[in-house]
Amino acid sequence: MSLLVVGSVALDSVETPFGKIENALGGSAVYISLSGSYFSAPVRLVAVVGGDFPKKYLKQLEERSIDLDGLKVVESGKTFRWGGRYHYDMNSRDSLYTELNVFEKFDPVIPERFKKSSYVCLGNIDPVLQRRVLEQIAKPRLVIGDTMNYWIQNTPDELRKTLKVMDVLIVNDSEARLLTQEPNLVKAAKQIIRMGPRVVIVKKGEHGALLVTDDTIFSAPAYPLETINDPTGAGDAFAGGFSGWLAKTDDVSPENLKRAVIYGSALASFCVERFSVERLQDLTYLEIKDRYRSFRDLSHFDDGV
Amino acid sequence: MSLLVVGSVALDSVETPFGKIENALGGSAVYISLSGSYFSAPVRLVAVVGGDFPKKYLKQLEERSIDLDGLKVVESGKTFRWGGRYHYDMNSRDSLYTELNVFEKFDPVIPERFKKSSYVCLGNIDPVLQRRVLEQIAKPRLVIGDTMNYWIQNTPDELRKTLKVMDVLIVNDSEARLLTQEPNLVKAAKQIIRMGPRVVIVKKGEHGALLVTDDTIFSAPAYPLETINDPTGAGDAFAGGFSGWLAKTDDVSPENLKRAVIYGSALASFCVERFSVERLQDLTYLEIKDRYRSFRDLSHFDDGV
Repeated sequence: MSLLVVGSVALDSVETPFGKIENALGGSAVYISLSGSYFSAPVRLVAVVGGDFPKKYLKQLEERSIDLDGLKVVESGKTFRWGGRYHYDMNSRDSLYTELNVFEKFDPVIPERFKKSSYVCLGNIDPVLQRRVLEQIAKPRLVIGDTMNYWIQNTPDELRKTLKVMDVLIVNDSEARLLTQEPNLVKAAKQIIRMGPRVVIVKKGEHGALLVTDDTIFSAPAYPLETINDPTGAGDAFAGGFSGWLAKTDDVSPENLKRAVIYGSALASFCVERFSVERLQDLTYLEIKDRYRSFRDLSHFDDGV
Repeated sequence: MSLLVVGSVALDSVETPFGKIENALGGSAVYISLSGSYFSAPVRLVAVVGGDFPKKYLKQLEERSIDLDGLKVVESGKTFRWGGRYHYDMNSRDSLYTELNVFEKFDPVIPERFKKSSYVCLGNIDPVLQRRVLEQIAKPRLVIGDTMNYWIQNTPDELRKTLKVMDVLIVNDSEARLLTQEPNLVKAAKQIIRMGPRVVIVKKGEHGALLVTDDTIFSAPAYPLETINDPTGAGDAFAGGFSGWLAKTDDVSPENLKRAVIYGSALASFCVERFSVERLQDLTYLEIKDRYRSFRDLSHFDDGV
């Protein structure tokens, strides 16, 4: 089934203890689309860039069969730029600068061809814009969305309205706690379910992810990487792998949601192995399957005696 | 096989957002022995208490078939007392007081009958004492040990010597990082393996536990409890369930170590449901088996399409 992705396309400058890159391809819509492209092709991308956006990056996206008809190029503007530095333990980072540029006035217009998209993945953008996207889509089968602290704190009412029209919310642990004022993650997820989404996924970074529905709790481990070069985009790679697998299989049963969480975790684990989207550029189906099996070996145990 | 447990017996006063208790039965050796007693009986306990130690607590331990021949009663002294308060999110606590009393001069003497113990679980005590225990045991099959920040920081050389004679080290994530100065938990565990133990278990509280050997990594989820009444003793209950299962089955294969981690996690999850050792007093085999199965449901997924 078709997968539509809406979010940011950015030029990222990132420094970690293992190296640095400048003006590399980034943004939520990029990480989601590239990760989703291993399952569902062509992924439909809706975003905005400026006239300065390098042609080679467009080519890179097209090489992964990403449909760029919804990528608006504002020739007179500049692309969204973000700069960040990760600390020694990789769990915290400083944003050095955030230049929204053309992204500040992003008003997602869904091309006619994209209006019948079955699966929709909304990257972390203004909840008002997330709803505006959905108003243009004819009865999507599943709406998956991300959000962040900024919207939880600054536009709580708009976020509440958007949560009512989302099927799956993907958040990290601190966001889940902030949104609900509840420290217990299982309770927090169940509170979010009462706000609208019927599936909540809580990403816990190096501790994996929790999938919570009304009657299922599933705990996915994190892949035990010894070297993480650049954590940027891991959450979006998760969302892309998760959404891509669901779009490919068109099955939202509890068992398949679990598989989707593992594919999401697998894509996130590849993402952080190299800088920017380097590792998401040339994966093979076999590598992804192998990593899926590694997740099984990592977490399965038998019935015992 | 026989299981010998050495550690503290204490009178705990604990306050959490859900209630408080005073002078309740506590201490590492108590939590380990009670948890282990569901698998391997009688568990052999070696510890020290003062003349003030309530008889009803002795009876409570005996009711779980714990062999108290190694429990020294110093009639003229007072029992180790600890007071603590947990914060709203239950992940942090303040020690209000620590009165070592008779525990300060604890010198573990292993009764003759206990000297041929196959499985030995050393609670968190001075690493010098941990070695003194082992010197009295004739060729134990498996030595499982705990430690804490205090020994890592204050007696690093003695701890290093003790690590050389331990087979399994159970630590929490912050202790693993402190011991190795390595933020990545997998790398930290592998560094600890180079210090002596061939199995390292890293407890991650609400995020479960990691089992690491030279060639296995296993990630156990935490049981998604919505209400935790008192986290005291969870780590020791883990050690007790883990050690008890291994002593019962006398099988230290990678597959059985995984099962032991799940039984340890199960006992820890029961432990925190009530205050002090209340919940570890009257579990049934069926309840434990049921929880084991819940851990499987929580973490297993199938091969997909």
